[in-house]
Amino acid sequence: MKYKYQFSLILFVAFLFSAPAYSQENTDLEMIYKIKTEGIRNSQIQDLAYNLTDLMGPRLSGSTNLRRARQWTADKFTEWGLSNVKIDTYGEFGRGWDVKKSYIAMKDPYYAPLIGYPKAWTDGTGGLINSEVILLDIQSEADFEKYKGTLNGKVIMLPTTLSTSPAFEPEARRLTEEDLSNRKEVSIGGGGARYSPAQLQQMRDQRALDQKVNDFLLEEGIALRISGTRGNFGTVFHTRAGSYSTAKNKTIPEMEIALEHFGRIERLLKNGQTVTVDAEIEVEWLDDDYKGYNVLAEIPGTDKTLKPELVLLGAHLDSWHAGTGANDNAAGVVVMMEAIRILKTLGVQPKRTIRIALWGEEEQGLYGSRGYVQKYVADRQTFDKKGEWDKISAYYNVDNGSGKIRGIYLEGNDQLVPIFEKWFEPFHEMGAKTITRRNTGSTDHVAFDAVGVPGFQFIQDPIDYGRGYHTNMDLYERMQQGDMTQAAIIVAAMVYNTAQRDQKLPRKPWDK
Amino acid sequence: MKYKYQFSLILFVAFLFSAPAYSQENTDLEMIYKIKTEGIRNSQIQDLAYNLTDLMGPRLSGSTNLRRARQWTADKFTEWGLSNVKIDTYGEFGRGWDVKKSYIAMKDPYYAPLIGYPKAWTDGTGGLINSEVILLDIQSEADFEKYKGTLNGKVIMLPTTLSTSPAFEPEARRLTEEDLSNRKEVSIGGGGARYSPAQLQQMRDQRALDQKVNDFLLEEGIALRISGTRGNFGTVFHTRAGSYSTAKNKTIPEMEIALEHFGRIERLLKNGQTVTVDAEIEVEWLDDDYKGYNVLAEIPGTDKTLKPELVLLGAHLDSWHAGTGANDNAAGVVVMMEAIRILKTLGVQPKRTIRIALWGEEEQGLYGSRGYVQKYVADRQTFDKKGEWDKISAYYNVDNGSGKIRGIYLEGNDQLVPIFEKWFEPFHEMGAKTITRRNTGSTDHVAFDAVGVPGFQFIQDPIDYGRGYHTNMDLYERMQQGDMTQAAIIVAAMVYNTAQRDQKLPRKPWDK
Repeated sequence: MKYKYQFSLILFVAFLFSAPAYSQENTDLEMIYKIKTEGIRNSQIQDLAYNLTDLMGPRLSGSTNLRRARQWTADKFTEWGLSNVKIDTYGEFGRGWDVKKSYIAMKDPYYAPLIGYPKAWTDGTGGLINSEVILLDIQSEADFEKYKGTLNGKVIMLPTTLSTSPAFEPEARRLTEEDLSNRKEVSIGGGGARYSPAQLQQMRDQRALDQKVNDFLLEEGIALRISGTRGNFGTVFHTRAGSYSTAKNKTIPEMEIALEHFGRIERLLKNGQTVTVDAEIEVEWLDDDYKGYNVLAEIPGTDKTLKPELVLLGAHLDSWHAGTGANDNAAGVVVMMEAIRILKTLGVQPKRTIRIALWGEEEQGLYGSRGYVQKYVADRQTFDKKGEWDKISAYYNVDNGSGKIRGIYLEGNDQLVPIFEKWFEPFHEMGAKTITRRNTGSTDHVAFDAVGVPGFQFIQDPIDYGRGYHTNMDLYERMQQGDMTQAAIIVAAMVYNTAQRDQKLPRKPWDK
Repeated sequence: MKYKYQFSLILFVAFLFSAPAYSQENTDLEMIYKIKTEGIRNSQIQDLAYNLTDLMGPRLSGSTNLRRARQWTADKFTEWGLSNVKIDTYGEFGRGWDVKKSYIAMKDPYYAPLIGYPKAWTDGTGGLINSEVILLDIQSEADFEKYKGTLNGKVIMLPTTLSTSPAFEPEARRLTEEDLSNRKEVSIGGGGARYSPAQLQQMRDQRALDQKVNDFLLEEGIALRISGTRGNFGTVFHTRAGSYSTAKNKTIPEMEIALEHFGRIERLLKNGQTVTVDAEIEVEWLDDDYKGYNVLAEIPGTDKTLKPELVLLGAHLDSWHAGTGANDNAAGVVVMMEAIRILKTLGVQPKRTIRIALWGEEEQGLYGSRGYVQKYVADRQTFDKKGEWDKISAYYNVDNGSGKIRGIYLEGNDQLVPIFEKWFEPFHEMGAKTITRRNTGSTDHVAFDAVGVPGFQFIQDPIDYGRGYHTNMDLYERMQQGDMTQAAIIVAAMVYNTAQRDQKLPRKPWDK
């Protein structure tokens, strides 16, 4: 409660100053014009998009492809003449893991190849395996007895509760005026817990049982576990089952297959049919470098006083492993790279230093951005401020796919409303005008927001982001390149405005 | 023109009699109630759907799985107590072809398994092949010289013009009242050819060049051709490149892969990268039986005079090869089987004989139904009538997926309007009420219509039929089982009404 009152007081003070602040915002419309022109006429979006997806491939944390992508982006920054290009470690991440072969097919009752891929960081199968598939029925630990000693070398699956239904709603959409208006509403939580204590206990029990099942299957020496995932029509959402921990614990080889293919085997088994599969997973573990990294590069500030200050823009370079991480998040990387390219090409001499950061390991827990913040900005546990804490004016992030920018989330900071209202004016006709006080989460700007440094994610048109992210189909074709051109222009302008503004952007309070 | 005047005259005569015909239509509403009740309470749709898709698998013409499915459906008819169950040949079809293994993955610049499947009736690769992929640029025969002698053992692809874009419209839908109203409109053709003579020539030239390219590639001894197809997000439309001809011509092993995967390789090659793939196709040719077959079964007629007459209901049992032919056309088979099961279970003693026909080889050119017509009904070239020509009152077909029935196409036969208006009355509340004079094509009822025997296809809700038919994702989950229950009930009622009607259904004129 104490915190809330403090917050309200500051908002009130901010309100007193907001009107004058509004009238003071200058935007260099000549520069905005140049940014738009460079972004539209000389767009590098297509080339960047191709390189980051098709050529680099999936960029799972620790993988060979992520290493290649770090080097490729750093080389590109150097080629563009950016300064202080660095592949910068933030500390330890864990083991790298590459898939060298993945194959699964049903052999009986008839041959049918299956769409599937190993869950990340699982062990390989040690060559091609052929086995009957066993559908386990485990309601409690007591059920282990039924299977003890019978599963060695077998392929197993557990029933799924997932199902699929036809898409009577469009799978891709743009935000309507009504959506945008709703997006501005800030709802205040409360009204009871989402789950009852009994439900919560049930969920805990299920998780505990899942873990015991996993341990049991590992001990029994099963050859492979097959899982279904959400997604349909051949699109498969891929996650991880294994661990990148340097403890090198053995894991069960596990593959996630298309829900329809999983359903077919499950139904056959439930109807008493014998199903066999051929499967092979070959993986390579990378144990030569456990560190995690971010890629950094700059356009140095030129104002004598302000040049130690920073404007950051960034996106995460890592992805999941079965697609090429196109919408999540090559799109964000491309937009941010293009934004800084535009500024560099225009020869801007910013007052503050502009720094781009391509984060590692976002998908595994925002490690790259949090590691950077821990190293350079502040400790969010101890509240210890570090060198950059009072130097960073803002961090801008793109990580909601390749849809165009429709506005920005202010993370509750009312002081920013008049500033961003003004800054977005030149982009209303490009569809970007919604300034919302709302929070948004699940990506790298929260690492900054968590230590009181303004960190922003944009409102973006969803297009079909939800249909493809984290899937085997998050590929080049998913990226809306026209939209990304718009986004790069807007980001370049926001970054430029932030770099040139007399003061750093106003902050929310952050202390013990 | 002569024909048209004749046709108008007959329509006029039909009109004179249509009002009395309307008032004469009797529907046995007690039986309709029984049909509805049996269909809803004791539905076998789920079991039939599972067996025909998951258990039988893809049912490509001539394949082992189609043979299994013929036997399984015949056995099921026998189990149900139907009469004259027959696996009836209509003549020669061609070679059977089973896929025993299908694998394709990109190896360089990094490993990535690809979603793909052999085109039907292509040859195998003779084991696992590994090769660089060559993107050919062939604008004319002159370009062959560039490649002559260089392609042996290579994997090749030709550029695609296909592309994919986000689905801003729903991929599944039901017909609205407006759609149904539009469906009733009959437009009269004319207004110029679709293509100009120059365009037609260009298309002919392209087809001729395609054939020459194919011959050239075969001669050069390429190891594999990779093609892209329409479809996206992992859904691949599969066709055939090889031949079931008993001439046993050698074909190029060819795989159709997901458009995004094709696009990735194409872009890499266009950007000068080396791409290699691992691929393997193993096929088995079946040369022990070249005949094509339909599965037939009956509920014999009981009226002394009318029992030699026939009411037919049917659907095609064959499918394409990469899914399990669920919406196309296990759904139709299941609906028709369920319809006759309902009638048999109710112990109906129809005046006319009710015969179900599960056609073979529809996907290869309506061979099963045309073969049946040729054998038993009439020769559509010579206009020679055979035994069943004047005995068949109607043929009912379902082959537009698993969406519920919304009405029926009359194939231009106005005389039928009052009859079907009456017969559909008990189904208005189930959403079926649209009687359209329109034609519809592309499936087995046209074999009957072509010889002047009334053949009907129903108007069905499309759901997501267009997204999945002929694809690797035409699987059990695509089938809307509630809708199929409705369809089976309506078909059973239509068949019953036709069997009991005093006269056969009125026909359009058919003669030389």
